[in-house]
Parts: sequence; structure tokens; C-alpha cells
Amino acid sequence: MASLSFVSSSHLTLRAPSPNNLRSSSPRPTSVSFSVKAQSVALSQDDLKKLAAEKAVESIKPGMVLGLGTGSTAAFAVDQIGKLLSSGQLHDIVGIPTSKRTEDQARSLGIPLVALDTHPRIDLAIDGADEVDPNLDLVKGRGGALLREKMVEAVAERFIVVADDTKLVKGLGGSGLAMPVEVVQFCWKFNLVRLRDLFKEFGCEAKLRVGEGGEAYVTDNSNFIIDLYFKEPLKDGFAAGREIGKFEGVVEHGLFLGMATSVIIAGKNGVEVMNK
Amino acid sequence: MASLSFVSSSHLTLRAPSPNNLRSSSPRPTSVSFSVKAQSVALSQDDLKKLAAEKAVESIKPGMVLGLGTGSTAAFAVDQIGKLLSSGQLHDIVGIPTSKRTEDQARSLGIPLVALDTHPRIDLAIDGADEVDPNLDLVKGRGGALLREKMVEAVAERFIVVADDTKLVKGLGGSGLAMPVEVVQFCWKFNLVRLRDLFKEFGCEAKLRVGEGGEAYVTDNSNFIIDLYFKEPLKDGFAAGREIGKFEGVVEHGLFLGMATSVIIAGKNGVEVMNK
Repeated sequence: MASLSFVSSSHLTLRAPSPNNLRSSSPRPTSVSFSVKAQSVALSQDDLKKLAAEKAVESIKPGMVLGLGTGSTAAFAVDQIGKLLSSGQLHDIVGIPTSKRTEDQARSLGIPLVALDTHPRIDLAIDGADEVDPNLDLVKGRGGALLREKMVEAVAERFIVVADDTKLVKGLGGSGLAMPVEVVQFCWKFNLVRLRDLFKEFGCEAKLRVGEGGEAYVTDNSNFIIDLYFKEPLKDGFAAGREIGKFEGVVEHGLFLGMATSVIIAGKNGVEVMNK
Repeated sequence: MASLSFVSSSHLTLRAPSPNNLRSSSPRPTSVSFSVKAQSVALSQDDLKKLAAEKAVESIKPGMVLGLGTGSTAAFAVDQIGKLLSSGQLHDIVGIPTSKRTEDQARSLGIPLVALDTHPRIDLAIDGADEVDPNLDLVKGRGGALLREKMVEAVAERFIVVADDTKLVKGLGGSGLAMPVEVVQFCWKFNLVRLRDLFKEFGCEAKLRVGEGGEAYVTDNSNFIIDLYFKEPLKDGFAAGREIGKFEGVVEHGLFLGMATSVIIAGKNGVEVMNK
């Protein structure tokens, strides 16, 4: 079970000082309780993602090998790394991107890139998540980069997840949104059916992910994605992951279990850091 | 442990009647012991493969859904199925090919083809193997089709392996030839290194499979193959398979464990059928 600690952040610059904050006399507050609704400028979901991402980037130190995540929240972290590098506030880091998209973004920002092939150990990975449960277990991969994300983040000494508070769930699969499974193209329908049947008791629906034109979505690794939708959250994510992994033709799944060392959640009430 | 039973075969037509055979008075011999060396025509390795393949094809009955293997020995079985279909001795079967190569061969022979998507249960699969151990556990995939072979053969009610007797080993990995692992192209060197390190105690060497032009060999699923070479046979194939499968980016491995229901081995002394 993760321990919870609420911390304030020097990056909460989007919020006007709240009465609570001004009243606080503790030099190291362990919790923050703001009422953002009372402010004149409401924080958008993007603002919250940015807050969480920038908080995570504070952990980066010179000399680090970084895992660079994929998705809208991770993109804010990559942006911030680029800014700190160009302003000289950060130096001597290299990044390993988890998708072609992130690679393009990082390259455009001048972030030096390497690969696991030459840098098999990562000091710190920062990435978003689609679901975060109370044990800091995750569902990831709605952005389609689950395999490369898992390869990179599995070898990271620290893995900080950044998200807005809509991603918190009581149990994995509980958002009712997609839990992706990457499968080879060969006989994908066969795997779709057996994945759906595996989770029958959770009211599982399984769908091939399609692109905007209605054609099958193809991952960076030339595979397809089967999205699983659950009516009931999974009872045992580890057992689910093991069973999915037994199917031939399954390349990876979106359950990231026991991997996150910290989760930074930005919500209306501030930024919350949960540590393993 | 598999039980061993030696049977004679009506398909041993390449051999001239041997003195042993003529002397036999048993109507149902349980073992055959020929001296092929004494014959005027020595059997080539291809002859032996063909003998084994044709023996396996005898098990095919009308109405069956068949898994069609890949490789030089399996190709003899596919050829024989084609012949029996065109002569009318066999009818009302459909096949599921395990590679594009086998698909082309079967199509050219007029074998009706279906897919796991519509036929998720297979009555009988026939395929070759690179190594067969005394438990009928296998190393497969030197032909590069391991993933599709495993998908198809894993759902076969019966799986008959056909091979010449050079494929028999005391322990998997014991031939000193390649044990293939299919990996995504992304960071393949990283996986090569950790696969090699995983089997350090067995004197493992790991090499990227390359084609004739020296370029990386690409599987039907757009992946690479890392070939593992062991100085010592594996002590526990199941443990090895589990550990390999834990690596992110590994798509499939060539250990086919607990899958074969029969192995037909053709050697200088005849055809031997080993049943689980």
C-alpha cells in the first residue's frame, strides 16, 4: 500500500494565493487545501496536467538518464525539460523516448536522445497514466505506446507518474475507459474473443482500436491494439496480467503493476504526491 | 514422461523389404529394426523427413480443421495432404497455415484455408521441430515462424511433430543450434544482452538473426529474431520459458513445452512414434 503525503509546490503558479495558504505558518506544510473554485480563473484539465508534469521535472538532476513518456501529460514534462535545458537551468541529461511522437517532440526541443541499447539503466522516468489505483498500480496505453513505455519504465530506478485527478480509480479498469492490449495482427479476432471471454465476469467488452478513418490503428511496432472495457473493476490486476500474458500473439498489456515509485496528481485542491 | 512405441508403417515404401521384415510373423509388430545401411539405396535426411511426414498425414480424417506447419519436414506433410486431396483419398478438410510460406504452398496445392479468427479450435496440427527431448518438449522456430506456429498449435487438440532422428536431444538447447526468441525491433540489442545474461550459466551466446544479404531477418509479424546458442542444455525448460516471457519486448520464444501429443521420428531403423 502506498503512503500518502500532501506537499505544496513552488510550481503552483497558476493559482492566486489562497487564504489558507496565507494563514499557514508551517515552513514545510504536509498538506494543502485550496479552494480553486473560489478563484477568478478556474484551472483547466490541461493546467492540472501541466502542474503535475512540472512538479515531476523538479526531480531531474544533471547526469541523469531519463525515460520520456508519451501522451498529453507527459508532453508537458518533455516541454518543461526542453525549456530548462535551453535556459541553462538543466544540463547534462539524456532522454530515452517511449514513442516516435515523443522522439520527434524531444528532438525539436534539443533534448539529447539515446536508446536502451546503449543505456540499459534509467535513473528517472516520467510519464502519464490513464488510471491510478490506491496501490499506485496503473492502466496505461490509451496513447498507443504501452509496449515502449513498459520497456523503458521497467528499467527505471524511479518512475514518477503525472496525472490530473480524473485518473484516480478505486480499482483498475474502474474508469470504464479502454484498457489496451497490444497483439500481433495475425488472427487478432481470435485474440479479441479470448480476451473478452477471459474477463466475462467483469462485463468485458473488447474492441479493435481504429484510427480516425476507421482503419485499424497500428502501433509503432506494427501491431494492433484490442481495447478492453470493464463494467466492474478488476479484482486482481496481477492475476489479470499473468492470464493475458499467457495468450500467444499478445505482445504487451496496459497494466503497469508495481512499477510506479511516485504518483503526482494535480486536482482542484492542489498537487498531491503519493509515494511507494 | 512420454511412452515409447515403435510401429511399422505402410509408408515405408522407400525401403526394400529387409530380412528382418520378412522374418516377422507378428501381425501387429510393436517394433521395427531394419538395417538400412545394408540396402542398396541409402535414405537421405529428406527421405526420412518425408517418411515421418507421410506417417503423420495418415491421422487426418475428413471433417478435420488442420494446423499446417512450416519448415522442410512440415512441407512434406502439406505436399502429401495436397496429393491425397487431389486424388480424392482425402476430402472435407480445411487448413490453417502457420506462415505466409506455408499459406502459399497450401494454396498452390488447392488445400482450402481458413483462419483461427473463424476456426478457433483445431483438430490436428502437424509440424516439424528443431529439437525433441524425451518429454516431447520441443525447440522450434529456426524457420522463423515460431509465433504463428505456437498460436495455432496451442489450440490443437492433437499436435503431431514430425522429424528425422537428428532432432532428438537429451535436453532442450542440447543440439548447440539456435533457440530463437522473437522480439520487437525497438531496442533489440537491449533484449539481446539481457537474454544472453539470463542464460549465462549455460554458456549462452546470443545473435541477431540475419538474412543472406546480412540484413536483419524480419518475421511475418515485423519483428526480429534473437538466436540463443547454449553450451549446456537447459535444466528446466519451463522456468526458462517463464523468465524469457517476463522481458518486455519479447513476443514469443521457441520453447514449445507440453504441447506435442505425438512425435514421429524417422531414422535409419524405421519410423518411431512417441506418444504423450
